[in-house]
Amino acid sequence: MTQTQTDPSSQVPDGVGADATALVTRVARAARAAQRPLAAATTELKDRALEAMARTLRDRAPDVLAANAADVERARAAGMREGLVDRLALSTTRLEAVAGALEELTTLPDPVGQVVDGRRLPNGLEVRRVRVPLGVVGMVYEARPNVTADVAGLAVRSGNAVVLRGGSAARDSNAAIVAALRSALASVGLGEDLVSSIDAAGRQGARALMRAHGLIDVLVPRGGAGLIRTVVEESTVPVIETGSGNCHVYVDASADLAQAVDVVVNAKTQRVGVCNAAETLLVHQAVAGDYLPAAAAALWEAGTTLHADAAARAALAEAARGREDLLAEAGQEDWATEYGSLDLAVRVVPDVDAAVEHVRAYGTGHTEAVLARDVRVVNAFVAGVDSAVVMVNASTRFTDGGALGLGAELGISTQKLHARGPMGLEALTSTMWVVQGDGHVRP
Amino acid sequence: MTQTQTDPSSQVPDGVGADATALVTRVARAARAAQRPLAAATTELKDRALEAMARTLRDRAPDVLAANAADVERARAAGMREGLVDRLALSTTRLEAVAGALEELTTLPDPVGQVVDGRRLPNGLEVRRVRVPLGVVGMVYEARPNVTADVAGLAVRSGNAVVLRGGSAARDSNAAIVAALRSALASVGLGEDLVSSIDAAGRQGARALMRAHGLIDVLVPRGGAGLIRTVVEESTVPVIETGSGNCHVYVDASADLAQAVDVVVNAKTQRVGVCNAAETLLVHQAVAGDYLPAAAAALWEAGTTLHADAAARAALAEAARGREDLLAEAGQEDWATEYGSLDLAVRVVPDVDAAVEHVRAYGTGHTEAVLARDVRVVNAFVAGVDSAVVMVNASTRFTDGGALGLGAELGISTQKLHARGPMGLEALTSTMWVVQGDGHVRP
Repeated sequence: MTQTQTDPSSQVPDGVGADATALVTRVARAARAAQRPLAAATTELKDRALEAMARTLRDRAPDVLAANAADVERARAAGMREGLVDRLALSTTRLEAVAGALEELTTLPDPVGQVVDGRRLPNGLEVRRVRVPLGVVGMVYEARPNVTADVAGLAVRSGNAVVLRGGSAARDSNAAIVAALRSALASVGLGEDLVSSIDAAGRQGARALMRAHGLIDVLVPRGGAGLIRTVVEESTVPVIETGSGNCHVYVDASADLAQAVDVVVNAKTQRVGVCNAAETLLVHQAVAGDYLPAAAAALWEAGTTLHADAAARAALAEAARGREDLLAEAGQEDWATEYGSLDLAVRVVPDVDAAVEHVRAYGTGHTEAVLARDVRVVNAFVAGVDSAVVMVNASTRFTDGGALGLGAELGISTQKLHARGPMGLEALTSTMWVVQGDGHVRP
Repeated sequence: MTQTQTDPSSQVPDGVGADATALVTRVARAARAAQRPLAAATTELKDRALEAMARTLRDRAPDVLAANAADVERARAAGMREGLVDRLALSTTRLEAVAGALEELTTLPDPVGQVVDGRRLPNGLEVRRVRVPLGVVGMVYEARPNVTADVAGLAVRSGNAVVLRGGSAARDSNAAIVAALRSALASVGLGEDLVSSIDAAGRQGARALMRAHGLIDVLVPRGGAGLIRTVVEESTVPVIETGSGNCHVYVDASADLAQAVDVVVNAKTQRVGVCNAAETLLVHQAVAGDYLPAAAAALWEAGTTLHADAAARAALAEAARGREDLLAEAGQEDWATEYGSLDLAVRVVPDVDAAVEHVRAYGTGHTEAVLARDVRVVNAFVAGVDSAVVMVNASTRFTDGGALGLGAELGISTQKLHARGPMGLEALTSTMWVVQGDGHVRP
C-alpha cells in the first residue's frame, strides 16, 4: 500500500548524466545476466534463497539498524517531518517483520511455469501459453527501507531481477539491506546481481533508469504523485502507475445506516495517509438528515475535519454546535484532494447516478465503496465507476494484496494495462507462447 | 500481422500544435462518453453493431472504392513504391473480405464480463475479478485501409472506443470507411464517436495522441520500426509495442532435415515482408554440410539471396556454382537486419547454446523456431530464448492471431507487459476487482 505523503528525497532532477547512464546500464546488464539462471530455477531453490535472505537480515540486524540510525539522525537534522521519519525508521521488531515477510513468500504458489491456457488446433499444432518472469524490474520509491527487502523478495520469488532506486534519505539503510540480500543470494548459488541498488548514481540514477528501454522490462514508481507523474512523463520503459488514491464512499438511501457509520469511520480513520483511505463521502439526499449527524459524531470523535457542501452543512447544522472547528466549507478543490490526513470531503447527491458522475469526475481510479442494500443501486455503481476496486458494503481499506488474498503486494496499480489493483507475484510475470508441431508449414 | 516495410506517410514530426491537441482532446472525450454505454452493452447488441458495420461497408462500397482510387492515384503520383501501393489499394474482393472479417468477430467469445478468478476470504468477503473493456484505444498505423475497419471491429466487440490515426496516404479511404462505420453504429443506437479518426489533425495528431495521458487508455503503434520507436520515446499514454520481427530458425543436428527444408522455405518465402517471416537461419555445424545445400537449392529456387558466414559458404561452395548471384557474405549487420524481402542470413553454430546466444543478441523478441528431435535441445531452446512465441518443429509464419486460434488480431506484441505475441480481443480488456461484504471493516 502506498503512502500519499511526499518524501522530498525521492524527487528527480532534469537531464541524465553520462555517469548515471553508464552505471544504470552496467547494473541492468548484470541483473539480466543473473536473471537467466533464475528464470529456470526450481521453486525449491527460490525458497532457499528467500530463507537465506531472511536469515542474513536477522544476522546482520546490528549493521542494518546502525545504518538506519544514521539515516534517521541525518533526516531529523535536515528537518524531515516526523510522519516521514516514522516510515524511515527501523527497529528490531520492524526488521523481524521484514524478515518474516520474506519467509511468508515461500508459502505462495510459484507463478512461473504455470500454463495459462492451451489447446490443440485443427491442424494438430499444440499451443500453450506459459507464465515466465518479466525479466528485470526497476523500482523507484521513497525513503522506506522495508520496501527494499519486500520488493527484492517478490522479484526473486517470481524469477526476476530488480534494480532499486530508493529515496536518498534511506541510503545507508538500503545499502546495508541490499548488501545482506546479495550475500544471501550468493550463499545459495544465485547471482548477487539479482538485487542491485543504483543509489550511488544519486538523483540522476532514477532518470537513467527511466530511459533504459530494452534493459529494464518494467518500471514501477511507488511514492507521491509528483514522482509518479515524472516517471509517466519521462520513461521510455513500460511503467505501472501505482498508488494515487482519491477514494470515495457512497452511502445510498437503501444503506444500513449504522453499518455505514462503522464503514466510513474505518475507511477514513483506521489508518491515515494510505492510498486506500476514504477522502470523500457521498450521501444520498434522502438519508442525509439521518445519516450525517450520526456519521459526523463518530468521525469527529476520531478527530476528523469534515469539508462539507451546503446541503451537508445544513444536515449537520444542529449536530455541529460546539464542533465548528471540525466542520469546514467544501469547494471544488476538496473533491479533487487526496488529503492523506484526518480530513474528509462530504457531499450530498440526489442519487447513485450523481454519485457515479462525481467519482468519474474526481476519482483516481483506485477504490470506491458503495454502501447499499438495493441491488440495482449496487449494480449501477459497479458498472458506472471505472476504478481498480469496487467495495460493496465494505471498507475501502481492504484494497491491499494481503487483505485480498494475494499474500504480498508490490503496490496498487491504478492503470488498466497489465495489472490493475493490488499487484502480487503474478503482476511480475509475462507469458510465452510455445507452439509444438511436426514439420508444420503455413499453407 | 504487421508489415515491416516503412510507409513514409506514417511518420511523425516534432512538437505538438495547439490545434491538434484541441482536436484530439475533443475526439477522445467524445469517444469516452460513447464508450460508457458500450461497456455495459450485451454481446447481442455489439454483434448487431458489427453486422451493421459490415452491411454499411458493402452498401457504400462505391464511395469507399472511389475514395481509395483517389488515394492510390495520389500515392502513385507521389512515387510510392508498388509494394506499399498494393497495401493501400482496395478492390471489391478486398472490401468484401474486410466486411466478412467484421462478421467473423461475432463468432468469438465476448471477453467482457468474464470472471477471471474469485474466492471467498476467511472473513467472508467475496472477491472476484471481472474482465472489463480498456476504455479508449488509440491506434497509429500506416496507409492500410483494411486496418481501419479491423481495429474498429475488434474495439467495438471488446467494448472499447477507438481513436484512429492512419497513414496520410490513405486519408480519403479512411474517411470513407470511418464515415460508414459511424453511420452503422448510430443505426443500432450506439454512439458514432466509438470510432473516430484524427487524420484531420495532420501529422501533429499522432503526437497529440501520444500525450493524451488520462484520455487514451492505451496506444498501439502498428508499422515500421521508426514509427514504433517514436511512440515509445514520446508517449505518456501506456503503449503496446508491436511488430518488429527479426525471427530465427535454428536447425539442430537432431532435426528431420527434409522437414527442416520445407519449414525454412515456408518461414522465409511463403509471404515476404511480414513480421513473422524468418530472417536468419542458424544451423548446427554437424549437419551444415548435409542440410545447407538442400535448403539452399529450395530457397534459391524461390529466389532467395543467402547472406552466409564463412562456415556456411564453405558448406555451400559446391552447390553455389552458377548461383553466385544468390550467395553473399554475411557480416555483423546481417544478423541485426529484418530484411522484409527474399533475403536470409545464414550462420553455422556449434550447438543449441550458441544458437540461443545468437538469438538473445540479435532477436527482437518476436518469434523463433527450433527444429529438432532431441527433447533436451528443444527444452534448452525454449528456456533460453526470450521471445513472445517459440515454434517447435513448425514455421515462424504461424505467429498470427488467426493461425493460433484467437480468431482475429490487433497486432503482435513484442513487449512483455500486458499482452505478448498475437493480441486478440482479450488484449483490449482490463480487469476490475469487485469485493462484496456485509459491513466489513478492516481490523
